[in-house]
Amino acid sequence: MNFKETLAEKTVHAEDVLTKYLPEEKGYQKKVIESMNYSVLAGGKRLRPILMEESFRLFGGNSAIVEPFMAALEMIHNYSLVHDDLPAMDNDEYRRGRKTTWNVYGEGMAVLAGDALLNKAFETAAEAFSMIGEAADIAARYAAVAKALQILANKAGIYGMIGGQCADICAEELPSDQVTKELLWYIHKNKTAALIEAALMIGAVLAGAPDEAVKKLEQAAENIGIAFQIQDDILDVTSSLEVLGKPVGSDEKNHKVTYVRLNGLEQSKKDVEALSEEALKILSSFDRRNEFLEDLVRALITREK
Amino acid sequence: MNFKETLAEKTVHAEDVLTKYLPEEKGYQKKVIESMNYSVLAGGKRLRPILMEESFRLFGGNSAIVEPFMAALEMIHNYSLVHDDLPAMDNDEYRRGRKTTWNVYGEGMAVLAGDALLNKAFETAAEAFSMIGEAADIAARYAAVAKALQILANKAGIYGMIGGQCADICAEELPSDQVTKELLWYIHKNKTAALIEAALMIGAVLAGAPDEAVKKLEQAAENIGIAFQIQDDILDVTSSLEVLGKPVGSDEKNHKVTYVRLNGLEQSKKDVEALSEEALKILSSFDRRNEFLEDLVRALITREK
Repeated sequence: MNFKETLAEKTVHAEDVLTKYLPEEKGYQKKVIESMNYSVLAGGKRLRPILMEESFRLFGGNSAIVEPFMAALEMIHNYSLVHDDLPAMDNDEYRRGRKTTWNVYGEGMAVLAGDALLNKAFETAAEAFSMIGEAADIAARYAAVAKALQILANKAGIYGMIGGQCADICAEELPSDQVTKELLWYIHKNKTAALIEAALMIGAVLAGAPDEAVKKLEQAAENIGIAFQIQDDILDVTSSLEVLGKPVGSDEKNHKVTYVRLNGLEQSKKDVEALSEEALKILSSFDRRNEFLEDLVRALITREK
Repeated sequence: MNFKETLAEKTVHAEDVLTKYLPEEKGYQKKVIESMNYSVLAGGKRLRPILMEESFRLFGGNSAIVEPFMAALEMIHNYSLVHDDLPAMDNDEYRRGRKTTWNVYGEGMAVLAGDALLNKAFETAAEAFSMIGEAADIAARYAAVAKALQILANKAGIYGMIGGQCADICAEELPSDQVTKELLWYIHKNKTAALIEAALMIGAVLAGAPDEAVKKLEQAAENIGIAFQIQDDILDVTSSLEVLGKPVGSDEKNHKVTYVRLNGLEQSKKDVEALSEEALKILSSFDRRNEFLEDLVRALITREK
């Protein structure tokens, strides 16, 4: 199988794992469950659970204990989209070609559905404790699941994704000359990279990787997340260049301060290259290799659309 | 010390524990942290953490491992208030005499602050894993914290509080003759009782109580939560009777289907009595007694305002 076929297969697998942990649509609370499932099953690349499972494999993991965490991370990603789309936030009526959750179920139910997904994420992740069994190293296994849960909560919260969302909202209200490179880096690191960090770190922790390796993966994931975001900004400029013959992207139209605007197109391209090189260097520095994971990272960063 | 003095002291203690786990207001994400702390520090009876600690004591618990869970449960209670108050939900501008979170920080930031509190609740609860130490029974201790976390997530989610909130929203849209006794019981059990159940169950689990005792406490807490809610409905009628000489409470004005409306005032009073008697019978059925806990439950249910 080539890379694309393998990726397609792994996407289906990640979706199956996720579906297994979604609640049944029944009972007096049926409406909120419908809203949750509507949001989560709207498609998407399932990138975060795939990255998590590949990191788990890189360190020799081969059990099902990673699965509740795969589902949990995807639920967190999706709850953040449901709340981001709300009229009180980005006011988006469509996402991936479908009506957004609030646009189908109403604003109140969309707030509740997002809350329910975030809560369900931790409920699902905590199910891993019930999969530990009676092994001789039971305490170490408990400790690994506990650490994975702490990473999940940390990277999704105010020192991770929510921190980045908050800084992003506040940055939009700032005069553009006050949006510094440092602030923009903080936003990308937390809003975009934090859940990628969680994915790679949790996979490794559950496979029993040493702390030092987990630390390295955190750095690799930061690079991947930020390079991914800069590439987004670059494409917003260069895709338009190719198509329209002039640099008029949506960021420019929205007066958005982007990495490209602050650092210039050439420097941005160089930074993407340096960041991804460093990430790939880290990923290939361990005893084992995971070629699919390396290919995936390469594909994410060098994508043309 | 009499009951009131002891309660006041324990309220201060619960507030201290909570404050210890609140994040520092600094960094690029300062605004969301300010909004979180504003919501949580708006006062309140701190009933749920107090109940949790007293249940912990009832089963001989005397360490600090209950503290992160006390703070976590109070954070969950408060995030639900922040989101309930949103214009998209109840549209409340004031709570406990202060402006609600969205009314101070804006709707988008209030959505984010609620999310951040829910996330922080699980992050905080998971800190209990780092307090386990190196005891001989380490695996059993991990299992207890894991079980407590599972109870927390379950009772706060779609099979608990969020389920009740969803059913409550949907019930408001139903013709009043379709709001059955069964539906109303479901709403009260989940919207009101579920976090009380979490409080008593988690305290017991962390103290190492047997499963059977935890099950009994769940029943006691359901009784307490529902009796508390019925008493609310009763006071909405009888307080008005005393003051105004006629039964015009806010529920009546809002055409709200209440327990009293469905079951009548006399039956409702009898039910409160029967529910609390059964709860107190359970609480006094274990090897140890906790008189303060029994007094607190009595005070909660027989309150006159």
